[in-house]
Amino acid sequence: MSHEQHTATVRVGSNIAFIKYWGVADARINLPLNNSISMTLAEAHTTTTVTWDASGQQQTDEITLDGRRLDANAAQRLVAHLDRLRALAGVDYRATVVSKNNFPMASGIASSASGFAALTVAGCRALGLDLDATRLSAMARRGSGSASRSLFGGFVEWEKGIDDATSVARQLYTEEHWALYDVVAVVSRAAKHVSSASGHTLAATSPLNGCRIASLDAALREVRQAITLRDISQLGPVIEQDALAMHGVMMTSHPSLLYWQPETLAIMQAARAWREQDGLAAYFTIDAGPNVHLICEQESVDALVERLDTLPGVQRIIVSPPGPGPQGIEN
Amino acid sequence: MSHEQHTATVRVGSNIAFIKYWGVADARINLPLNNSISMTLAEAHTTTTVTWDASGQQQTDEITLDGRRLDANAAQRLVAHLDRLRALAGVDYRATVVSKNNFPMASGIASSASGFAALTVAGCRALGLDLDATRLSAMARRGSGSASRSLFGGFVEWEKGIDDATSVARQLYTEEHWALYDVVAVVSRAAKHVSSASGHTLAATSPLNGCRIASLDAALREVRQAITLRDISQLGPVIEQDALAMHGVMMTSHPSLLYWQPETLAIMQAARAWREQDGLAAYFTIDAGPNVHLICEQESVDALVERLDTLPGVQRIIVSPPGPGPQGIEN
Repeated sequence: MSHEQHTATVRVGSNIAFIKYWGVADARINLPLNNSISMTLAEAHTTTTVTWDASGQQQTDEITLDGRRLDANAAQRLVAHLDRLRALAGVDYRATVVSKNNFPMASGIASSASGFAALTVAGCRALGLDLDATRLSAMARRGSGSASRSLFGGFVEWEKGIDDATSVARQLYTEEHWALYDVVAVVSRAAKHVSSASGHTLAATSPLNGCRIASLDAALREVRQAITLRDISQLGPVIEQDALAMHGVMMTSHPSLLYWQPETLAIMQAARAWREQDGLAAYFTIDAGPNVHLICEQESVDALVERLDTLPGVQRIIVSPPGPGPQGIEN
Repeated sequence: MSHEQHTATVRVGSNIAFIKYWGVADARINLPLNNSISMTLAEAHTTTTVTWDASGQQQTDEITLDGRRLDANAAQRLVAHLDRLRALAGVDYRATVVSKNNFPMASGIASSASGFAALTVAGCRALGLDLDATRLSAMARRGSGSASRSLFGGFVEWEKGIDDATSVARQLYTEEHWALYDVVAVVSRAAKHVSSASGHTLAATSPLNGCRIASLDAALREVRQAITLRDISQLGPVIEQDALAMHGVMMTSHPSLLYWQPETLAIMQAARAWREQDGLAAYFTIDAGPNVHLICEQESVDALVERLDTLPGVQRIIVSPPGPGPQGIEN
């Protein structure tokens, strides 16, 4: 293995799910209870450099996230993922990982999605492993379920599958298909109390979970068709309903997960009022956190940002069209 | 019929449901999808005087609610209920109704519960009809489902039943059984967009509704047992879960009903923080509106009110222990 192959840098976009991933059939491999559909984001991304030490001198993995060196406890989940890459390549090299998000972590924008996808792609490339996007998707899923979707650009469906090999994402349409925007109203940079990784095991404790899962085949069909037709008025109500259903499941699980803050409600109510009273076609979705993602077409972005700016409690607004899949960056 | 029998005044407490009534099997007679359990409130009540004109001179029902004379449109639901009383008595007298709530209407405290119960009891008494509480409960239910529960004091279960005669409330324990308090944080006096009467027909449009209903037998058992044992730590988590489940159903129905306001979330989050960090045993429940009912024992009331007073957006606090059933008032 030549020196050049021991390091690689990759940039991967986060993604926003229109039909959410919530709940696992097998927590060990992040096998989900349902298919999910997302849009990969151009403007919310993680850039990760992985360098493997083939010399055997390095004793531990060294991981730096947004400029902060992680201690053993904080690094645990990432080291476990590096172990998977080592097992695949049949090596025991330690790694130096430097990773940077251009958006706030752990508060509703899926940093684990872009983070584990970037770690997977950069780690495999630096090891000289030649995996196709489908196999990389399966590998990224093991780190974080939603990372499986960030292996593809544009509009993506993660097939729940039945095992490790079949639970993978595929691209529905490239990022050129539809200039849809995710306008993220960031209301809190505080890390959430319960990470979504542990929340997934709680879904089954909610009395509402079975009904949500049973309803998703119809919702997935609606979302696929709406994306095909580029029809925001078909897409919007379905994505709002599934976000509300997922939070209904979260709120009624044991323990109860209440991710929303007062500002979350203010934005949800405002979005509906703007839509009903002013015809501004923006629809909300919310991940496992308090931030609100407003989905709209390009023509609505400026008006939406202007209005969001007037709401108290909106700390930052991130605007993103669909983006590409993983991009290699020259070191 | 003597002159004295033509008028009657009755005071009836509203009630707060621990397991909610949401969704109808038969909208025509308010036959519910599930049993519900409530506490009748001493301090939130409606006082209603009904006077029937046996002379035949009065041409229309005249209804005054909180000092405001209702026009034909606003009076429609109440006139329909007066029609039921007339049919039962076999008369065609018109009525003069004067009704007063001591709490704000249509924003999370069930004014329709105490209002229709008081109208039923006062109306029947003034007609000289001698109905027992069970039959009055069935009659009140026709006006507003939750009114069936206000026919009894203390702790009450409304059996869903299978028809008009069997869908009635019964008392579980009198108001002397347990000094439980409802501390209502009123955040808005604005009337809600969708009345709960029309919302009940929407429950079946939510993908989550079937699961909530299927889970309630276990929840009802828990609540009955917790009341029997006077155990707030058993009661609390179940009532929070059912309130969240009901709002999950509401939010995911077509159209989506989002009754919460930012202040609603602030109080929910605060109550959980007070409980977890300071051991203040208060649990929330929320009806079809933005106000939050905090359920606690007598010893916690002062501390709770003091804390609620510090939250922005709390406009008024109503504190109520369990109260008696309908009280006749001498004219």
